[in-house]
Amino acid sequence: SGAGRRPALPPPCARNGPAGAAPAAVAMGKRAAVVLAGCGVLDGSEIHEASAALVHLSRGGAEVKIFAPNIEQRDVVNHLKGSPTGEKRNVLVESARLARGDIQDLTELKVSEFDAVIFPGGFGVAKNLCSWAVDGQNCTVNEHVRATLQAFHSAKKPIGLCCIAPVLAAKVFPGCEVTVGQDKNVDGRFPDAETASAIAELGCKHVCKNVNESHVDKANKIVTTCAFMCKAPLHEIFDGIGTMIEEVLKLA
Amino acid sequence: SGAGRRPALPPPCARNGPAGAAPAAVAMGKRAAVVLAGCGVLDGSEIHEASAALVHLSRGGAEVKIFAPNIEQRDVVNHLKGSPTGEKRNVLVESARLARGDIQDLTELKVSEFDAVIFPGGFGVAKNLCSWAVDGQNCTVNEHVRATLQAFHSAKKPIGLCCIAPVLAAKVFPGCEVTVGQDKNVDGRFPDAETASAIAELGCKHVCKNVNESHVDKANKIVTTCAFMCKAPLHEIFDGIGTMIEEVLKLA
Repeated sequence: SGAGRRPALPPPCARNGPAGAAPAAVAMGKRAAVVLAGCGVLDGSEIHEASAALVHLSRGGAEVKIFAPNIEQRDVVNHLKGSPTGEKRNVLVESARLARGDIQDLTELKVSEFDAVIFPGGFGVAKNLCSWAVDGQNCTVNEHVRATLQAFHSAKKPIGLCCIAPVLAAKVFPGCEVTVGQDKNVDGRFPDAETASAIAELGCKHVCKNVNESHVDKANKIVTTCAFMCKAPLHEIFDGIGTMIEEVLKLA
Repeated sequence: SGAGRRPALPPPCARNGPAGAAPAAVAMGKRAAVVLAGCGVLDGSEIHEASAALVHLSRGGAEVKIFAPNIEQRDVVNHLKGSPTGEKRNVLVESARLARGDIQDLTELKVSEFDAVIFPGGFGVAKNLCSWAVDGQNCTVNEHVRATLQAFHSAKKPIGLCCIAPVLAAKVFPGCEVTVGQDKNVDGRFPDAETASAIAELGCKHVCKNVNESHVDKANKIVTTCAFMCKAPLHEIFDGIGTMIEEVLKLA
């Protein structure tokens, strides 16, 4: 039989290292850690935000390592139906899909080895990295996430966050400045504008910005952009995340 | 108690429509269908390839709808360990993560409603859309995937594919021209170069291209780029997929 003349392939597209790996020629670039929260907007990291951050980091010549907490997801959502499935999945294991397998437990992150840290958004940030999804501004922040944020802040290394992730900064660094877009539902494009009020109630300054812009809190070296908190075409969200990465790499 | 002052948020980042939705202002753009195979390089669509295709389609003003077959995945791979888990997952349900919930069963795809179709890569293409991962060039192609490809081809509408997905075209359209990168492992950057030989053995012409290039088979309106078949920094893969989308939209 002719069957099996070409044997089973090893996984294609699966051998060339981390998604964000910079080529050797620019290996002297800034070293960035990216912290994920799963894989999928409703229970993990927002996929397009995470991918955009990695594309822009790659273009900026950054050396990237990817991390996620080794914990169970708060829930697993069927993204077709929008409802929880009752399954159990692990944040690190699912985040590994975005990282093409090249990912480490967040507890392994050594701040001394990095110049900057990036937190993409997605509901997983509010479910797995903190409890904002359930508790709002009274949320608790995962201890390793909190320790990571505090360590970068103490070392005066920049922190980039997008979408809902700026609430992590607002919770951990009272008084800091962040944007999650607009504080009113301008043109129906900011349906989650109330998040800005919650941030203000935490004692932080919410700065209104459009989707193609970032806000830089120079004192705290915190850079934020609203990403999918704004109803916008995907390439505008991609470009907005590009400004966030650019500002982070400048500060690093 | 102060608890619950800010009630549980509805899913942030989850309300603004499909990942690839174009704004109303450019709604007269080309209509593109994107066919996914799951969510993750080892058992589904390669996430960064799918996201890049959607970013470039958005920038090109295309109206995008996303589809996937409503079938069980061939396997579920733990992307941290690289080994199968024994779990069962559905291709359409997992693809919905990439589509932010806005996805339809591939059987719903009506070719008359689209100007072009795009197949991102990832091992899921070779596991769920056809059996290349197991059977190589003797593979079978999912009947709805085959019907979709044949319908776009018959209607002289362009088909864009990247990474391992060009094997679908090679299998369905003998004699067509595609690229999966180089036919030798040039500089160690093309470890899956044998795929080019398998394509040639199917009676197709493999055209060597670099990661930042696409090949256009003008007679068949098939546009291909190697993406993660090449070991390259993520932004070069992103840009290569950009050339593929650009050529597809020109032909549409």
